Parts: sequence; structure tokens; C-alpha cells
Amino acid sequence: MATASCAPATNTPVEPTTPYAQLIDLIKQADLLGSTVSLLGWDQETMMPNQGLAFRSEQLAQLARLHHDQVTSPRIGEQLEACEADRALMADPRSVAAVNVRETRREYERATKLPADLVAELAKTTSLARHEWAEARRDSDFARFLPWLEKIVALTRRKAECFGWAPGGEPWDALAEDYEPSCTAAEVQSVFAPLRDRLGALISDLTASSTKPTNDFNERTLPIEQQERFVRFVSEQIGFDYSRGRLDRSTHPFCSGTHCHDVRLTTRFRDDNVLDALGSTMHESGHGIYEQGLPAEHIGTPMGRYISLGIHESQSRMWENQVGRSRAFWQWCHPKLAEYFGPAVGSFTLDEVYGAANIVRPDFIRVEADEATYNMHVMIRFEIERVLMTGELAPADLPGEWNAKYKEYLGLDVPDDRRGCLQDVHWSMGSIGYFPTYTLGNLYAAQFFDKALEDVPDLYQQFARGEFGALKTWLIENVHRHGRRYRAAELCEHVTGKPLTADPLMRHLERKLRPMYGL
Amino acid sequence: MATASCAPATNTPVEPTTPYAQLIDLIKQADLLGSTVSLLGWDQETMMPNQGLAFRSEQLAQLARLHHDQVTSPRIGEQLEACEADRALMADPRSVAAVNVRETRREYERATKLPADLVAELAKTTSLARHEWAEARRDSDFARFLPWLEKIVALTRRKAECFGWAPGGEPWDALAEDYEPSCTAAEVQSVFAPLRDRLGALISDLTASSTKPTNDFNERTLPIEQQERFVRFVSEQIGFDYSRGRLDRSTHPFCSGTHCHDVRLTTRFRDDNVLDALGSTMHESGHGIYEQGLPAEHIGTPMGRYISLGIHESQSRMWENQVGRSRAFWQWCHPKLAEYFGPAVGSFTLDEVYGAANIVRPDFIRVEADEATYNMHVMIRFEIERVLMTGELAPADLPGEWNAKYKEYLGLDVPDDRRGCLQDVHWSMGSIGYFPTYTLGNLYAAQFFDKALEDVPDLYQQFARGEFGALKTWLIENVHRHGRRYRAAELCEHVTGKPLTADPLMRHLERKLRPMYGL
Repeated sequence: MATASCAPATNTPVEPTTPYAQLIDLIKQADLLGSTVSLLGWDQETMMPNQGLAFRSEQLAQLARLHHDQVTSPRIGEQLEACEADRALMADPRSVAAVNVRETRREYERATKLPADLVAELAKTTSLARHEWAEARRDSDFARFLPWLEKIVALTRRKAECFGWAPGGEPWDALAEDYEPSCTAAEVQSVFAPLRDRLGALISDLTASSTKPTNDFNERTLPIEQQERFVRFVSEQIGFDYSRGRLDRSTHPFCSGTHCHDVRLTTRFRDDNVLDALGSTMHESGHGIYEQGLPAEHIGTPMGRYISLGIHESQSRMWENQVGRSRAFWQWCHPKLAEYFGPAVGSFTLDEVYGAANIVRPDFIRVEADEATYNMHVMIRFEIERVLMTGELAPADLPGEWNAKYKEYLGLDVPDDRRGCLQDVHWSMGSIGYFPTYTLGNLYAAQFFDKALEDVPDLYQQFARGEFGALKTWLIENVHRHGRRYRAAELCEHVTGKPLTADPLMRHLERKLRPMYGL
Repeated sequence: MATASCAPATNTPVEPTTPYAQLIDLIKQADLLGSTVSLLGWDQETMMPNQGLAFRSEQLAQLARLHHDQVTSPRIGEQLEACEADRALMADPRSVAAVNVRETRREYERATKLPADLVAELAKTTSLARHEWAEARRDSDFARFLPWLEKIVALTRRKAECFGWAPGGEPWDALAEDYEPSCTAAEVQSVFAPLRDRLGALISDLTASSTKPTNDFNERTLPIEQQERFVRFVSEQIGFDYSRGRLDRSTHPFCSGTHCHDVRLTTRFRDDNVLDALGSTMHESGHGIYEQGLPAEHIGTPMGRYISLGIHESQSRMWENQVGRSRAFWQWCHPKLAEYFGPAVGSFTLDEVYGAANIVRPDFIRVEADEATYNMHVMIRFEIERVLMTGELAPADLPGEWNAKYKEYLGLDVPDDRRGCLQDVHWSMGSIGYFPTYTLGNLYAAQFFDKALEDVPDLYQQFARGEFGALKTWLIENVHRHGRRYRAAELCEHVTGKPLTADPLMRHLERKLRPMYGL
């Protein structure tokens, strides 16, 4: 029945003409597939029925293979070389084209430098190790996790060697590059050391004080439906755009962006402690506002992507802490509590709620820590992972080292490894070099916010009226719209005129917390 | 810094050894990617923020290209030939291997027979036509849609020619193959003709009767949150497994299965008419129970897939109509109304609700039609699309033909094309050959249900006690577990011992409706 008109023809789409156009086309295709991976991950955490897990793993493994083929395609390497040889194209290192070429080169090298057997062994080991870690944590059984940690340390050290590091550097630098490009352990250390000293002094003073805010508001039971309406209202008010995003629930809150027009947040709720849900939601909204603020015209290219995890975290922490734990914010928000929860919250004064949002109390668990002690948890992990990578600390000695540092920095006697060195999932996943980005985020947040206050002096008065648009506009203008034009340290200098230091964060904490604790 | 251990190595996964194992591996990979497409489609209709559409279209286009490459891979053709030459493998035509080879051959031929330029032109034309259709429908402006319909008719006729049809057949057969494999227009006509005559007589009698059930229950306003809890309860009670699926809202209800452990239903709600939400939910749950009943060991292969749209529809219609509009179902469900809605439904008797679920009234819109007149809408469309394909009817003459048939079969004067030939999206999408599957579903449902009643004589008594497990088990045993082992007509003969006829459906309708209308 086939006629002449049914002869198969070749589909010949118009090919981009210049090497740069071809490069952009290739990386946009890879990003598109990456965004599908991201969506499947979001669905898995929020929507997927329990029994869908095994099949989902297969879907994700298939997409990971296809995506790996795309990002390591020799065609990218060829176009990169042609672009790099084009002097006019690369003349201005801050131009869109130069940034896209530079960052694509960086990602291409990362993607092609690891031998396939090491990638496969890391994937297999961490997949098993994550399960073993969960069991070991449940039973507070470090011995069970130790052989897996040893394997992961050996494999990540090999990974670091494959990537290499600059003269005078160390293996940690090579690993941190995945999370905080161009960041070295030595640089982190130079900012963390003064932070640790000043923070230690502040925490001691606060802990010793007989004046303390009351925790009562954090123990008030409030219906979760009401909490959900409330946190959704606040997130919208501070600037998260629901026509380009959504908010759902998950065990661990996260922000998953496929691109700036589809950004998905999750949060969590407990019967008591609406401030936990509010903090999580404002935090994730901060991540989401950053994703939504990235330039739409550069979707799918480095110029349309966030700079680093530290900068991402600076956005979430600023909305969570500089805004959400400020008295000005509560001047506006305190009356809203009565609107959303009725008489159940009617008796709490503005200062009682503001105080409850700012209680500082050294404790064992990082993810439950307050704004001040949180950074101690991070610095302890950084110091430990650094020496795990140099080999100065053997994995078997991790619990002893961990507990000694908790005693030294937070004055705590860790009761067991479940509440000690087994509490976090990161190392079991091979994520070494990740932890410091949390505190780098706090530091960047404080330094950026100081500058925003300098540029918009009545920010706090605006917050007290429920107006958050000026801060969002400032962030878009100074941070979001640049995509990856700058590295994190460069952006900090560009925006604030200074390198990153511990001063702004410490000033922020001291000015707020000392008076609250009668100091 | 690179050491010897960093030399890139080739990843060499173990290859399946026999041609059949290789074939299965190839088609499972293609199915896996297809399931990702399906998930993105579900997300688009239920979860995606408004502004995510443009990017989502790009994601889907990319996956469609990758999927097309997989299903048309010459490697599939090679393995198919090797399998087909293996006499032992193909000895029993009902064996798993023989079925998988036969169906894969069928799909491979369909996927590779169309020239790429025709595929591209169809995709582009239908994408534009769908938009034009929506505008034309809104304005009841057939002239606006006509040039698009003409293009689509010409392109689908060319498509039919590429596929070809059996001697004595016609172009419609070649197109229907996508929806109802091995089904011909002549066969459909031979079942539809007696159905149309008997149904016409029944509808006339019911319409003329002075005794009619009251519609009052369908006009009762009920809170949507309560409706949602109620329909979710019923869907779970009839056997939809929420550990392997979910229920959400969308404008048009649908069932989207990525595989039997992750089946997603949607439904819709209106302030009034909980029976609309209930009917939609039971309908989609029927689709979902079929998907969940497909054999897990054959996921990703034809043996793990539904037979045809007609058989899929038989499953949804059975739960919606044979179960959900039966008096036995309402004996159990009527007291539940009071539990879920309280005094708002307290005054309606069992027979008032049962009657409201079974009102027959000829009207213009297919998707709002009742259990009896619905089939008239379908038969009109089938008769028209058949002659559009032979060329006996010119697209320009569609409204006249449409209106004449509505007058003849349903006694209605179509007031405008919005409520006439522009009401459905199908033809604008190039879906010609699809409509009859709705009525084939009703026919199969009735014939299967008669057999189920023969095998389990107290089914109705079980429904009256809220027990639906025996029917679900019967369906799994007789329909679901076979995957694509049989074609639809073969399954019907295998299960009921008879070819498909109009008798069971007409008996079902006449026995239920005539007494209700005092006839």
C-alpha cells in the first residue's frame, strides 16, 4: 500500500552556525535533560506513591546515563576549543559569551576528568553506604558505618587526585569545587578562625546569662492547616511568585528549580512550633526567590544559573534570619498570628514571639540548631573533613575527634554517635566539601545585608509595614541577575567592596542577641 | 596531577546474550523513557505552575526525540528478525516471548513506516490546529477551523496510505490501529448498527415517558472538601490501591500510569452535583485498577501493557456504570452520603439518589451525556470520520452532516457549532479512529460483566455490602493479568465465549432504565 510519498525522509533541522551558537545549543540540551532529572527527584520526594521507588530509580539511572553522555560529548570539547580561540568572543571576561565558555569549560573538565570505573565505584559505594549509614545511625553503631566511611574516604581522595589542586592547596579544595567553585580550605579557614573565636565568646556569654527569652511560644500546638495557610501567606508576601512556583510538604524541606519559571519549594510542619515551619518556609522561599530572579533569557546556560551553594545559601539565610528573625519583621507579622490562629496565640506579646524566634542554646543536632550555634556545628565538620582528606585523621578516630570538638566549641558531652558523628547524611553520600557552604551562606548573607541597608536605609521600617519588595529588588539587581558572571568571592567584592569576613555576621548576632539576653 | 589510576576506562556493562533478551532490554529502555514523558504530562496537568508551560514543551519535545530514536532503532529491527526466525521461541503464539515479539514488531512497523516529513508536518499542524480549534469553538466559528480540518484530513489520509489496510478495508482501519489494534470500520459498523437501532428505540421511549426520576439530588450544593474525602473513600473501597497510586484534581479527569506501581488519577469537582465527581472518580479508578492489575513481572514490555483503548475503557465504564449506577451499589453507598455530608443530604431516599444517577436526557454535549445517549454521540462521530477518510464527506460539509445526524438519532436541533461539530478536541489533534473506543468500552464492559455475574452470581449482593474485591479479582484474572496476550476481539471470545455484540449492553440498559421510567 506504500506510495512514493511514504519514502522515509531525513529530518534536517537548521543547525546553529557559529561554534558559540553550537556550544549553547549543546549545553541547553543537556540542561533541559538535567531539569527533567530534577523534576523526577522533586516528584519522588513529594508526590510519588510509596511503591514507585524501584522504578523511579531506573528512570533516574537512565536519564543520568543520557545526561552524562550529553555533558561529556566530544562535540562540546570541540566547540569549546573553537570558542576559546576566538579572541573577539573572549575579549571581555565578564561578557555573556566569555562567562558561558569559561563555566562550560570548567564543568566539561569536571565531567570528563574522572575515569568511568571510579564514577561507577563511587555511585555504587555511596548508594550502599547511605543505607548502612541510616541503619548505623538508628542503632548509634559507628563500627557498622566505619568500613563504609573508610571506602568513601579512600575513593574521594582518589577523586581529588584525579581533579588535582593548585600548588599550596590540598585535596579538600578539589572536592569543594563541586559546591563552591574556586574556594580553598585555606581561604575558608582564614574566615572561619576569627568567626569561631568571637562566636565562642558570644555563645558562652549568652549561655551564662540569667536573662533569657521565653520558649513558650515554640511549644504552642497549632493546627497544621492553619500553619500551612500562614506560611504560604508569608512566603508570598516576601516575594515568592506562585505563578512561577509551588509549595508542598516533604520530610526534609528543599527547593528544587527546573528553571526560573518553575521553582518548587517544600516545607515541613509539626503540631507545635509554627516558627519551625515559618523558618523552613522563609529559608526555602529565599532559595526560590533567587531561582526566580535568575535571568530568563539565559535559561539553560551558566549565565542563567546560581553561582555556588554558598551564595544560594546566603539568599535563603537572609530571608530566614536577617528578615525573619528581626524585630521589624515581627512588628508586621505579630498581628498576623492572631489573624491566622485566633485566640490560640492571642496572649503572646510581640517581644515574646520575637524572643522565641531567637533563642540560643548549644545542642547536639545541627539541623535543629539556632542562628548562632549553627555555625559551630559547621566549622567542626569542616575541620574534620579537611584532615580526613589529608589523611591526618583516620576514619576510625572520627568519634573521638568529633566529641572533643563538641566539648571544646560548644561545651557539650556528646552522649552517643547517633547524636554525634553519625547525625548527618552528607559524608555517606560522598559529599565532602559541602558543609562549609552553610556557614559561608550565613557570612555572605550578613555582608550583603549590611550593604543593602547602606543602599536602602529604611529597609527595617519597610519590613515593619510588611514591605519586602525593595530588598528583593536589591537582591535581583546585585546578585540574581548576574547568574554565574562572578565567582562567589568576586561577587562579594563587587557588591560590598570588601572580601568576605566574619565581621558583618558577628555584628549582626551580637547587636541582636546581647540585649535580648540582658547583656 | 593526574595519576595512572585516573586514566579514563570504558564502562562495559554485561550485555544480554540472546536476541530475545537484547530485544527486551531495548524495548524496556524505550518504555522507561516513555514513562518519564508520561510523568511530565501528568505534572503539567496537575502540578506545574502556569508559567512553566513553554519550558515544559521543550522538555517534552526533547524526550519525544530521544524516545523516537529508541523505538525506531535499527537494533530493534535486527533483534526482531532474529527472534522471528527462532521457531522454538515463536512456537506458542500465546507465550510471553511470542506475544512480546509480535507486539513489538507491530509497534516497530508503526513507528518506522511514516516518513519524517509527514510526522513533522502532522505534529506542527495539529499543534497549531488545536489552538485554532479552541478559538473557533469559543466563537462557534466553523469557518475559522475549516482550513485546519482540511489540512488534518489530508495529512491523516496520507498517513493512512503509508500504513496501508487489508484488502476490502478502508483508510479508517489504518488509523484506528493506533487505538484499537486489528479493529476495522466494517466490524465496528456491524456491532454499532443494531446498537443504534435498539438504543434509538429505548431513548425515544424514555424521553416520551411521563414517569422520570427526579434530578434534585444533582442540584444539591455540597462542600468540595467533603466531596473529595467521599470520592477518595469510594475509590479506595472499590479497590484502587493508594500505596501504588494517587488522586489529584485537573480540568479534565484522566488516568496516567507510568507502571503498575505508580498510577495517577485525576478528577474534577463542582459545587453542585457530587455524582459528577463520583462518576469521574469511579471511571478513572477503573482505568487505574486495570493499570495496577497489569503483571508487574512484565513491566516495560507488551505483556505488561493494556490491550487497547476499548478494553481500557471497558474497565473504567464497568466501575462507573455497571457498579456505580447499580441499585446494589447505592444500597451500600446511600448511608455513606449522610456520613460524609451530614444533614445536607439527609432527606434524599435511596431511590431518589439511584434515580438521579440514572437520568437519561438527549442533549448536545458528549462529555456531559448519560449512560444511554452517550453511545449515540460516539456513533455519529464514527460515521462521520469514516466518510471524511474515504473522501465521501468533504470537511466543509461537516456541520450539515453533524446536525442532520443529531436530529435523526437524538431528535435534537443543534443550535450552533460550539455545541455541535466543534465541541470535541480529538479531530484537531489528528485523532481519527479514536471515538469508537468509548462505545466499544461500553459494549465490552457489559459483555464482560454478564460473564462475571455468571461466574460470581452474588456480585450485586456483595456490592450492597460494600464488597468489591470479587469483581476486581475476576477482572485481574480474566483481563488484567493477560497484558497484551490477546487482541481485544480475541480476549472477548476467550473470556465470554462469544464475539462482541450489542446484546449485553442493551439488556443492561433496558432492564435498568425501563422500570425506572415506568415502562
